Amino acid sequence: MEFAIIGGDMRQARMAEMLASDGHFVSVSLMEETEVPGAEEMDWRSAMRDAKYIVLPLPVSSGGGIINAPMSQKHETVYNILEGVKPDQTVLAGMVDIDVRHFTDGHGIRIIDYFQREELAITNAAATAEGAVQILMEELPVTLLGAKILVVGFGRIGKLLAIRLKALGADVTVSARNFADFSWIEALGLGRADTRRLDGNLSEYDAVINTVPSRILTEKLLRQLRDGCLCLDLASKPGGIDFEAASRLGIHAIWALSLPGKVAPVTSGLAIKNTIYNIISELECTD
Amino acid sequence: MEFAIIGGDMRQARMAEMLASDGHFVSVSLMEETEVPGAEEMDWRSAMRDAKYIVLPLPVSSGGGIINAPMSQKHETVYNILEGVKPDQTVLAGMVDIDVRHFTDGHGIRIIDYFQREELAITNAAATAEGAVQILMEELPVTLLGAKILVVGFGRIGKLLAIRLKALGADVTVSARNFADFSWIEALGLGRADTRRLDGNLSEYDAVINTVPSRILTEKLLRQLRDGCLCLDLASKPGGIDFEAASRLGIHAIWALSLPGKVAPVTSGLAIKNTIYNIISELECTD
Amino acid sequence: MEFAIIGGDMRQARMAEMLASDGHFVSVSLMEETEVPGAEEMDWRSAMRDAKYIVLPLPVSSGGGIINAPMSQKHETVYNILEGVKPDQTVLAGMVDIDVRHFTDGHGIRIIDYFQREELAITNAAATAEGAVQILMEELPVTLLGAKILVVGFGRIGKLLAIRLKALGADVTVSARNFADFSWIEALGLGRADTRRLDGNLSEYDAVINTVPSRILTEKLLRQLRDGCLCLDLASKPGGIDFEAASRLGIHAIWALSLPGKVAPVTSGLAIKNTIYNIISELECTD
Amino acid sequence: MEFAIIGGDMRQARMAEMLASDGHFVSVSLMEETEVPGAEEMDWRSAMRDAKYIVLPLPVSSGGGIINAPMSQKHETVYNILEGVKPDQTVLAGMVDIDVRHFTDGHGIRIIDYFQREELAITNAAATAEGAVQILMEELPVTLLGAKILVVGFGRIGKLLAIRLKALGADVTVSARNFADFSWIEALGLGRADTRRLDGNLSEYDAVINTVPSRILTEKLLRQLRDGCLCLDLASKPGGIDFEAASRLGIHAIWALSLPGKVAPVTSGLAIKNTIYNIISELECTD
Repeated sequence: MEFAIIGGDMRQARMAEMLASDGHFVSVSLMEETEVPGAEEMDWRSAMRDAKYIVLPLPVSSGGGIINAPMSQKHETVYNILEGVKPDQTVLAGMVDIDVRHFTDGHGIRIIDYFQREELAITNAAATAEGAVQILMEELPVTLLGAKILVVGFGRIGKLLAIRLKALGADVTVSARNFADFSWIEALGLGRADTRRLDGNLSEYDAVINTVPSRILTEKLLRQLRDGCLCLDLASKPGGIDFEAASRLGIHAIWALSLPGKVAPVTSGLAIKNTIYNIISELECTD
Repeated sequence: MEFAIIGGDMRQARMAEMLASDGHFVSVSLMEETEVPGAEEMDWRSAMRDAKYIVLPLPVSSGGGIINAPMSQKHETVYNILEGVKPDQTVLAGMVDIDVRHFTDGHGIRIIDYFQREELAITNAAATAEGAVQILMEELPVTLLGAKILVVGFGRIGKLLAIRLKALGADVTVSARNFADFSWIEALGLGRADTRRLDGNLSEYDAVINTVPSRILTEKLLRQLRDGCLCLDLASKPGGIDFEAASRLGIHAIWALSLPGKVAPVTSGLAIKNTIYNIISELECTD
Repeated sequence: MEFAIIGGDMRQARMAEMLASDGHFVSVSLMEETEVPGAEEMDWRSAMRDAKYIVLPLPVSSGGGIINAPMSQKHETVYNILEGVKPDQTVLAGMVDIDVRHFTDGHGIRIIDYFQREELAITNAAATAEGAVQILMEELPVTLLGAKILVVGFGRIGKLLAIRLKALGADVTVSARNFADFSWIEALGLGRADTRRLDGNLSEYDAVINTVPSRILTEKLLRQLRDGCLCLDLASKPGGIDFEAASRLGIHAIWALSLPGKVAPVTSGLAIKNTIYNIISELECTD
Repeated sequence: MEFAIIGGDMRQARMAEMLASDGHFVSVSLMEETEVPGAEEMDWRSAMRDAKYIVLPLPVSSGGGIINAPMSQKHETVYNILEGVKPDQTVLAGMVDIDVRHFTDGHGIRIIDYFQREELAITNAAATAEGAVQILMEELPVTLLGAKILVVGFGRIGKLLAIRLKALGADVTVSARNFADFSWIEALGLGRADTRRLDGNLSEYDAVINTVPSRILTEKLLRQLRDGCLCLDLASKPGGIDFEAASRLGIHAIWALSLPGKVAPVTSGLAIKNTIYNIISELECTD
């Protein structure tokens, strides 16, 4: 198979290297500032000529329609690139936004968002959980062993983080909002709390980690934290912590986004590669 | 609140005791052979007169419409009992079958199946996982520490069992059927296999545990197990092991059903009580 | 190498089988009631003629100087057997008592007690810990998940048992007697108590497990246990529980001895085999 | 009780704060650059006048007899301070070297080295193990989940580190040198290797962590590591890695010393405080 990898960060670079070492023909474009053993450096136009699969970054655009290419000095729009896609080619991209989706729909281009794949989300959650453990270790003046920690939310990241913290000897409470999650929390040997009833129950934690993408930790709640409590937000978009209030109250609050690419680019690149293989194997079954 | 507990096994008895010690008025009927501290023994007709909630067993019927009452000498039909239910009473029962559902629909009786509640299913899965560990310890001539074990299926029981086995030092592989489950299996540090590709990969296990309610372990696969491999089936209804073939091949195969009530009646009774409280709190929000 | 295995239980039988499958010549005697694939059944006099290593049971004697041979109808004294040992032969036996030691010293027989080897003691402790988990699961009406458990003593068995119980979701406290052990207990994320200050702190446990070979759980302490608390004694010789008082008080108390051979004969046989190999490799370095 | 804390880093500062909040009178000297809530800042001469216990840093001297006081601009010799100690006072200091020991012996000063206490060594090992996990997370481009890691040595740090790495989903091998350790390694569910036979078995690890204070990882072994393998040395004094060769071979090697004070000053300060309490309770029993 032929892959054209255009743009992206260290995850795309490592993925390209691994695709090449699996025996595929791989070209890389718009990442001149790094070396990718086994892959051919090309300008993107040539690269797209013969590739069966065109792999764009995660997120595909860094804003304003410009392709996300932090390891390149060049600026290219996603649309320019997409215009050259031929009917027998498939585009694989991460976090495809509405504008891009509109464009590909209008032009009959087959584009698949690999970031919407559940298997990648789970692998990313595992890397995010590890990254969160790392940040807690870096920032807390106590060991996680014996620390009292609240994880808000019991989604993919909340689950995997709580399990890791407990395994390291922390005293872990997880807050959730429904009876089924409460049962899961207890079945895993974790302490449980109700996300809707945190008010009045926050004064003993050494750290509070939010994983829910809605404003949970309001000023009212932040005021109840003990001195020195660390606040870590792993939720995207609006985030769950009132950072403005935290800053005013002198609370150490950190918003950690996109951890997988930062703390484990090789594992993340591998996960993207595996997801792309899964997508291709499903396409081949359907086609 | 007033509860009439009619029929059931040790779980219902322990649940009745705990309801009473929470301060409710509780009557027990059709379980003369055990004692329930704090609850009033009554014949079921009197018991139903004033109760707000009538709690029937899990499963509600032991077959042929007879109420499941292993701790009583009396035989009563579920229909006889249901006929006496008044409009302001609520019936809580486990594993309500189609015939019973038909009857209650026809008579305008409010009946809720507590066994269909996700939170109870999860708590039951945790107890089942422990029960499975117990059986493996009892039956295997090796320690779980160092044993090579395959868990077929990654539902509630598969997850909780695999985590426990790994924690005890076993070398655990879990088989599943989709990419998302594969990612979960790896994120939990477990080995992974594909349930559709077990053929040819079964010769090294000390034990194989099925959790999937469909015939996975056919004669063809059973023939590939190493001498002395233990087969444990935790799946209900059709089961996942060809027991007839296993017997013919001299394979030690065990079908373990209804473990929670057997290995942990108190924990199971508590789980039913909590589920009933959850149901009631939701009814009160709605009403 | 040639091994004569004389007497013993399933552990010696499995060990003999494994020695044979490693390619050694192995004879078995005084275990007619079981089959040992790969080993030659012989009367013990012939067996001893050419063997380099003579392996006796664990414990070597079942009392009164009679060799411990539960899988045989014959009764032979250990002394009769030892009398036939030649100067170039080595006897390996378990739990060699003073009388036997006297005899071998007097006759210039090289005898090595494999049960005194630290590596076997540790492997046995791991099997004992699993056996204890099994008994707790069998006897408790609650799941270990969420159960409150006290382990008295932090030796080999105490350590390995506490780690396993915690991994299964129990709330585990370990009692010990010195500051170093307290630090270890905390470093492993376990709760700690002082064995000398259990008085007044026993009323909340679902189970208490003793691992210390001295009378810790006196009547005074037993009286403080909550109703239904299970007492399990894993300590040898005098034991740590006042069983007479426990019986009088209606406390469910179990004295579980020699668990490894009972719950995991194959693992235990393998451990003895490995220990014998270790002994031989050290003898060969010295000789 | 009255404590004079003279010199030290953040651990001594936090310890002083905790001693004060336990209700003791506490003075701090030679740490002007930090604030210690609850403690009285004094010059060290006045501080020593009435204190029952004089607590010196860990290590007591930063070289050349100068007291270790990184949070002070002043330079004072340990001897100057010790000269003022009165017969009814007790000095508690960490890593007391031969020169200091000579001096105190000659002057009849009671000095106790708190760093030689086993309980502190274990608590430090737990903090060191966490610090090592943090460094691995920071430096490796892969997640610990799924990483193949070798821990050389099975002392306090080796044990606690290996358990943590395994709990995070790494594939952990521990190398040791005797049969008893091999049994412990297996009883904890870890992979085992022989420290004397690493030659030829090193090519698959993502990271190798040394905990043994003797040159294990020679150039010959370092050459066998796979590309990108991280080498982490946690051993004091000579260290276990040939760093000169590692640098020449382009291997990423890190020597991490004194982790507890760096990664967890509060936990470390608490551990010193507890150790001092233990020492005092033993002195009071003896006196």
